[in-house]
Amino acid sequence: VTPRPAETRRPRLVTLTTDLGWAYAAQMKAVLYRSLPPGTVVDLAHDLPPHAIAEAAFVLKHMASGFPAGTVHVAIIDPGVGSSRAPIAIDCRDGSRLVGPDNGVLGPLAASLGIRGAVRLDPGRLGARRRPSVTFDGRDLFAPAAARLAGGAAPGTLGSALTPKPLALPRPARKADGASGQLVHIDRFGNLITNVPTPWMPAGRRRATVTLSRMAARTARLVRTYADLAPEELGVLGSSFGLLEIALREASAGERLGANVGDRVLLRWLPPGARGSGKR
Amino acid sequence: VTPRPAETRRPRLVTLTTDLGWAYAAQMKAVLYRSLPPGTVVDLAHDLPPHAIAEAAFVLKHMASGFPAGTVHVAIIDPGVGSSRAPIAIDCRDGSRLVGPDNGVLGPLAASLGIRGAVRLDPGRLGARRRPSVTFDGRDLFAPAAARLAGGAAPGTLGSALTPKPLALPRPARKADGASGQLVHIDRFGNLITNVPTPWMPAGRRRATVTLSRMAARTARLVRTYADLAPEELGVLGSSFGLLEIALREASAGERLGANVGDRVLLRWLPPGARGSGKR
Amino acid sequence: VTPRPAETRRPRLVTLTTDLGWAYAAQMKAVLYRSLPPGTVVDLAHDLPPHAIAEAAFVLKHMASGFPAGTVHVAIIDPGVGSSRAPIAIDCRDGSRLVGPDNGVLGPLAASLGIRGAVRLDPGRLGARRRPSVTFDGRDLFAPAAARLAGGAAPGTLGSALTPKPLALPRPARKADGASGQLVHIDRFGNLITNVPTPWMPAGRRRATVTLSRMAARTARLVRTYADLAPEELGVLGSSFGLLEIALREASAGERLGANVGDRVLLRWLPPGARGSGKR
Repeated sequence: VTPRPAETRRPRLVTLTTDLGWAYAAQMKAVLYRSLPPGTVVDLAHDLPPHAIAEAAFVLKHMASGFPAGTVHVAIIDPGVGSSRAPIAIDCRDGSRLVGPDNGVLGPLAASLGIRGAVRLDPGRLGARRRPSVTFDGRDLFAPAAARLAGGAAPGTLGSALTPKPLALPRPARKADGASGQLVHIDRFGNLITNVPTPWMPAGRRRATVTLSRMAARTARLVRTYADLAPEELGVLGSSFGLLEIALREASAGERLGANVGDRVLLRWLPPGARGSGKR
Repeated sequence: VTPRPAETRRPRLVTLTTDLGWAYAAQMKAVLYRSLPPGTVVDLAHDLPPHAIAEAAFVLKHMASGFPAGTVHVAIIDPGVGSSRAPIAIDCRDGSRLVGPDNGVLGPLAASLGIRGAVRLDPGRLGARRRPSVTFDGRDLFAPAAARLAGGAAPGTLGSALTPKPLALPRPARKADGASGQLVHIDRFGNLITNVPTPWMPAGRRRATVTLSRMAARTARLVRTYADLAPEELGVLGSSFGLLEIALREASAGERLGANVGDRVLLRWLPPGARGSGKR
Repeated sequence: VTPRPAETRRPRLVTLTTDLGWAYAAQMKAVLYRSLPPGTVVDLAHDLPPHAIAEAAFVLKHMASGFPAGTVHVAIIDPGVGSSRAPIAIDCRDGSRLVGPDNGVLGPLAASLGIRGAVRLDPGRLGARRRPSVTFDGRDLFAPAAARLAGGAAPGTLGSALTPKPLALPRPARKADGASGQLVHIDRFGNLITNVPTPWMPAGRRRATVTLSRMAARTARLVRTYADLAPEELGVLGSSFGLLEIALREASAGERLGANVGDRVLLRWLPPGARGSGKR
């Protein structure tokens, strides 16, 4: 992908990802549309779990990384709004720009797109003369910055260089007969997305025991897709994220198992032919 | 309406209707915006009840049929993703195209727009070289197909002809003193939408008994609009779908009556002057 | 801001604010896109609390007032649909137009933009020949009116002059050692937005007692932003609305306190050094 020149004429798309709900996000759209043409703002999600930085970072990476090079991605999951955490913009290798608080939420997306540089946003350079409050930087600081970037401004004109804070993400571990990791996301269906790569599931095995934090081990079937499961049967399969997921057919594994993002996950592949030792 | 030529220059609108939630839908938008201009993707709903094909088919028909001729409508309610159910595109008489799984969800909309032909989508012809997973055809197969169709590709270039599977919908029955049918949709207010046509409600009657699956009969007033009801009073009125609905004024009939989509409905018109025999 | 001429060529943005949920709102978008170009319809919120006119009026004012002059704002919170309440369009001083029921929901936004005139919408002049129902004016009346206004029609061509009904909003009262008011909005985080202006919070005070309808007094800390609070600590701070809010750090004050929009609020500033008399 060839990066677009910094001062391109054609406005870029601006995507919005927040835990703010639609009403606050609408105030950001108002700011953006004061200078951008119709259709340039794309709502990704405004219903992310409140204040959950690591899960939002995971979801954002998967939502945003497929957008065209040059897109401006704004992410407002910002429990530290108004504190000393920096407001930042990241200049990515493909010409995309990322805008949000420097709390790690932009980290995985930035890493996947490649970082060319980053700045700490300077309110004074954004024409944010009078800050009406310190509790909604999404509207008062990040939306004006995104509008400028979408209009073609170079990130360097909006603040001074900074190195974004990294987000420490848990790493999965491969074991002789299984894998350990964490739940990194629970989707709308209640499917439990782990951080264990799908290729770690061995060919030729048909069952595993699944152990989540604070819960007894359960037997699950290793399957290709949801429809391979019987009703109420627990399964492990390759999710669309390239990571293993734990699912029930047409029911919420999250609710049934009382699982939460951040729970530890232990998967143990059972020998071929085994019927499992955990409870169903 | 004159159908637009298959290879039109101006990109068409693409609407998205899913039970996936916003985060997965965002991944579909990323794919679409890789080739389509700003503003062409319209979110209809991403919060449909999970896996509820018949209700989604009903809602989709009413949401999408008013869009301009030539629009591409994508519907992802797909509990059988990755199984042998076919991925399809339907070519409609007005030039609209429908994209989704061949599980009936597109059926009522297709019937109302008129079917000119349909194809089974061929991943090989969609440039979907490497399928990253088999659990998210919305992103990996249907969004690329919709992008091609919106760009002007003829459906026949994306796969081979097929006859879509019909969706068996329940039919209401007219009776001497009433009607029987089913609940086909419960809206955000908890209003219960039946499949009984509004014109079946007789003029000159003022009350009916309403019996839902597993519930005792209740008396309801036949009214024109919600504001005709007293607080807490149950009513039957003509919904905006052209079908009778059962409602409480500014309260959820769905919650109060414990009703579910698919419940049987029996309506019995009471003689003029009757006060009703069911409990209030 | 210079108002745009009434018969401008370039279509205006149309924003949608409803309590209808996404599925009904989609039917309004279908109507709008039959005549407007891609990207002109902007979803603000479709998940407002059902039938809550005063709260919607408050939220609408804050969402919509930042949009460019000339935008058409449609608000459908309409428990009286089909009754004698008038359907209206308001012509604002900056060229913006507001469309919705005459129940007060448009009042605060109209007041903040300045009213130049208003009309009662005439279905006959909107080409709404056959009203399919009386329960969804958003689709059958307001969306066609918005499409005409966005296309450049002067409001006076769509109906006859009327004076919109005012919305009686509660007023806060300043007291020697505090303030009284009401909860006007609860946001997605459960923060309680009052109608007490932020500048009424005295400098040099550090604590207050907070009393809500039907609840015992509690002590809260007066802070600048959420991050100044300890976990579980109750705080009072300046919200992004320019009004005081009552919040817990990363938790829902609404759920913990069982608060509702409309609850009375009494704030009493404690003397410097006081530790508070209410329970924590």
